[in-house]
Amino acid sequence: MRETPADAEIRSHQFLLRAGYIRQNTSGVYSYLPLGKKMLRKIETIVREEMDAIGGSEVLMPSLQQAELWKETGRWYTYGPELMRLHDRHEREFALGPTHEEVITSLLRDEIKSYKKLPLTLYQIQTKFRDEKRPRFGLLRGREFIMKDAYSFHDTKDSLDATYEDMKQAYTNIFTRLGLNFRAVIADSGAIGGKDTHEFMVLSDIGEDTIAYSDSSDYAANIEMAEVRMDYPAPEAGEQPIAKVETPGVRTISEISEFLGVQPADCVKTLVFMVDDEPVIVLCRGDHDVNDIKVKNALDAKVVELATPEQVKEATGTDIGSLGPVKLPTGLKVIADHAVRSMRNAVTGANEDGYHFKNVNPEKDFSADAYEDLRFIMEGDPSPDGVGTIKFARGIEVGHIFKLGTTYSEPMDGKFLDNNGREQPYIMGCYGIGVSRILAAMAEQFHDDNGLAWAKEMAPADIHLVPVNIKDDDQRQLADDLYHLLTSYRYDCLYDDRAERAGVKFADADLIGLPVRITVGKKAAEGIVEVKFRKTGETVEWKKEELTDKLRSFFG
Amino acid sequence: MRETPADAEIRSHQFLLRAGYIRQNTSGVYSYLPLGKKMLRKIETIVREEMDAIGGSEVLMPSLQQAELWKETGRWYTYGPELMRLHDRHEREFALGPTHEEVITSLLRDEIKSYKKLPLTLYQIQTKFRDEKRPRFGLLRGREFIMKDAYSFHDTKDSLDATYEDMKQAYTNIFTRLGLNFRAVIADSGAIGGKDTHEFMVLSDIGEDTIAYSDSSDYAANIEMAEVRMDYPAPEAGEQPIAKVETPGVRTISEISEFLGVQPADCVKTLVFMVDDEPVIVLCRGDHDVNDIKVKNALDAKVVELATPEQVKEATGTDIGSLGPVKLPTGLKVIADHAVRSMRNAVTGANEDGYHFKNVNPEKDFSADAYEDLRFIMEGDPSPDGVGTIKFARGIEVGHIFKLGTTYSEPMDGKFLDNNGREQPYIMGCYGIGVSRILAAMAEQFHDDNGLAWAKEMAPADIHLVPVNIKDDDQRQLADDLYHLLTSYRYDCLYDDRAERAGVKFADADLIGLPVRITVGKKAAEGIVEVKFRKTGETVEWKKEELTDKLRSFFG
Repeated sequence: MRETPADAEIRSHQFLLRAGYIRQNTSGVYSYLPLGKKMLRKIETIVREEMDAIGGSEVLMPSLQQAELWKETGRWYTYGPELMRLHDRHEREFALGPTHEEVITSLLRDEIKSYKKLPLTLYQIQTKFRDEKRPRFGLLRGREFIMKDAYSFHDTKDSLDATYEDMKQAYTNIFTRLGLNFRAVIADSGAIGGKDTHEFMVLSDIGEDTIAYSDSSDYAANIEMAEVRMDYPAPEAGEQPIAKVETPGVRTISEISEFLGVQPADCVKTLVFMVDDEPVIVLCRGDHDVNDIKVKNALDAKVVELATPEQVKEATGTDIGSLGPVKLPTGLKVIADHAVRSMRNAVTGANEDGYHFKNVNPEKDFSADAYEDLRFIMEGDPSPDGVGTIKFARGIEVGHIFKLGTTYSEPMDGKFLDNNGREQPYIMGCYGIGVSRILAAMAEQFHDDNGLAWAKEMAPADIHLVPVNIKDDDQRQLADDLYHLLTSYRYDCLYDDRAERAGVKFADADLIGLPVRITVGKKAAEGIVEVKFRKTGETVEWKKEELTDKLRSFFG
Repeated sequence: MRETPADAEIRSHQFLLRAGYIRQNTSGVYSYLPLGKKMLRKIETIVREEMDAIGGSEVLMPSLQQAELWKETGRWYTYGPELMRLHDRHEREFALGPTHEEVITSLLRDEIKSYKKLPLTLYQIQTKFRDEKRPRFGLLRGREFIMKDAYSFHDTKDSLDATYEDMKQAYTNIFTRLGLNFRAVIADSGAIGGKDTHEFMVLSDIGEDTIAYSDSSDYAANIEMAEVRMDYPAPEAGEQPIAKVETPGVRTISEISEFLGVQPADCVKTLVFMVDDEPVIVLCRGDHDVNDIKVKNALDAKVVELATPEQVKEATGTDIGSLGPVKLPTGLKVIADHAVRSMRNAVTGANEDGYHFKNVNPEKDFSADAYEDLRFIMEGDPSPDGVGTIKFARGIEVGHIFKLGTTYSEPMDGKFLDNNGREQPYIMGCYGIGVSRILAAMAEQFHDDNGLAWAKEMAPADIHLVPVNIKDDDQRQLADDLYHLLTSYRYDCLYDDRAERAGVKFADADLIGLPVRITVGKKAAEGIVEVKFRKTGETVEWKKEELTDKLRSFFG
């Protein structure tokens, strides 16, 4: 493909298209051409080896899933339009599987009735379907894609913990073998609960998630989940008496800090959240941002949303922009981030349009019902594991491991007899890897301005063999000889025997990105070829006789 | 699974279920458990190797196929309820791919615009969907199944012929390597036309097709397609004068031959077919049956159907059962099978209720517009290739290769420039293998009364290791040692370390059908095990020290 498709927003996707790895069939639906399919198979082989190594057994479950199963867990009703649905000739309803918790639980509940058969880990590599509202970035968010999904079944939480750790190590092995720059990131467990859940993120500027990681340890967390563990200094001495100041038209933290000539860190930010439909006041330092997931966890709530201006007015009698913690209506719950406690002579809204307080001091001028970790972590904060300083990066999620507990086994009646003869629901884990998404993430990591540039361990083929002029007998002969020689040494060779100009062939070789290009040109009669290494751009001239030895020392 | 599922009609399917290879999710939809998935992977590996060996390149196309493509060929309207259909969140229609002619033609037409890029063979191994009216026989006719489908693109018919022959050889290699007793069978090309099409049939009593094959050559054809090539003897001398006989209530060939004391071979069978809505008289010998596909081909017709009694009456003025070729209304086309020409003093209906003619002689008492090959071949007929005698067998179709010509490229505008710069539609071939169906066909061939009994080259694992009493320290220790030893020799071992009775374990081993069972029993302390060969039932005692040498001589 010579031209860049107009709707290909990111470089890696453009290169995968232009170099002929993939083609779009329709929005979010792709075909894998031979080079793309080769990459998929290599990725799958690594995934399979690592799953087998931790005792996983490969299965294959159907894409057609009876609606009845999804009704047992209620997800038929809650999954939304992402779930592709159809019916058969007898008007029976089916889901086109985006995931297989229901199917595997229904299979196992008929088979595994005793703790003696547990634990058990099953996995599959399979095409999945999810009707994304806005498919984008090519393979990164498609509607038909390839996943490895694994499910484990246990009689105890300890057993689940052990498999979870095995899985975490297996995933680490997989992404390491793929050559990816990734982090295992503490993630949000969403609606399902359970504390341990990790996302595996490939670091990339186009990632949709922000990762907070330590510059000196392997700590990493989705920014939504990163704990803030700081010993804020005790407040300095020198409390001054609270004073009201006129601040006409001043509403935001940046406006008030500029108006009064103070730092945002000297101001208290006052927000109202609707927590399970009740208003709650949340305070943080002016240079910080409140993390609603932490608010939700702190209050053990189901739904947390920022209050609308109307809800703020109703709860506090005050307009947004003038809110402050001093003299709030009684009965309103107030929680504050730890950082607020150590503030001294702070600035806050006065709950009165056009006025602020200065010299506000916590536990003197206002009090909070609780001080909790409520804010987003920031670059420069100490890492929560005590080692190093936090930095931010963007990440592409390529894997997710998850302790499900009994979320599926309870409603689906997936039960076994424990060693006391008591019926118990399976304790489950689930573990996903986006196989086709990995291809996109790899392309994002392994490219330069001229195209893809794969690592030698993980490329669709090893060598791009390019005779400059296929009509020159010496070149053709040497190229043919080399093709057979290299193939006999088990190198996977792409042989460009087209009658195209050398420039076109070189550009295509760069685009496709095999680790080594061997050019057969003017010195063919002397048995000399040019070898170019894609990653470094380095070129050398090697004689035919020394080629295999030297290639072996490169490929190892 | 201890009990045989009630709806599993055939032995192979029962064994696949009971031995834990597969599970039914819903009608025609199956999960592959670890043993079944291992078999699938072994089958796929062989298919892939043979496709690669003839220059096929593996791709992967989507299951979600835009309805627009199927409308280009008209199959959206003609495919019927077997095509599973769905729509996405934007109400766009999709087919769930049962086959990929439309998709691949749409992909290639944007890529391959010059004869220089042809020929090209692409294949994929993929889950397909077809909403069968009556799914049956487990994996043999399912609604979600795994296919290898390949498509080839050519600039000339010779090029297609060459790839077709390559494919035929590759298929022969595949089914031979799988150890299947199969035939490449000349098949009907159906509505698509083109003469060369072969089905690959595994011989099996449960097959739904009848194959006519030579007992002395590799000739084989679907019975619908088998030519009859016989030199019927010239009619004997001794024509007698035609005579009408009263035959009250006699209507069928068997009734008339019994009534008159003659052989069915001495009677002429007279049928009326509606050939593209025109009545045509078709004659054959009384012991033969007319093959309507041959009638259709002989008359180059689109639709051929046996006439209803009303249509017969209208065309001939006579009731069915009294029809004969003598003195038919003028203007009626009459064609006859070659065998009729050599009949002498035959019996026919008299076109008058209750009467027949005897001593009827062709070309004297009636004439045919043409003599053609119109009948079904019969067991005992000479093989059409001149070598041996025809026998019948039942077959399971596991592969089908097909010259499509321009059936898809014409309506879809899939065109290239030939070497004269003229635009031409691709000449195409398509080639399918039922991967999951092969698993069922293999189970059908490789089983006995006790369960599955795989060939050593093609089993889900090599060795079933069975300690008789897992609680006996000597047995457990030796079994553990052997497991590690055998695994280090790269044998794939199934280790039955359950605390079950020996009888249960042996029965399960027979059911699962691995080629070798190693039983660790009373002689464990002496380092002696019992080795049982599943196919022959032979058992021997081997010492631990000699085990790997002797296994090597068995497995080769």
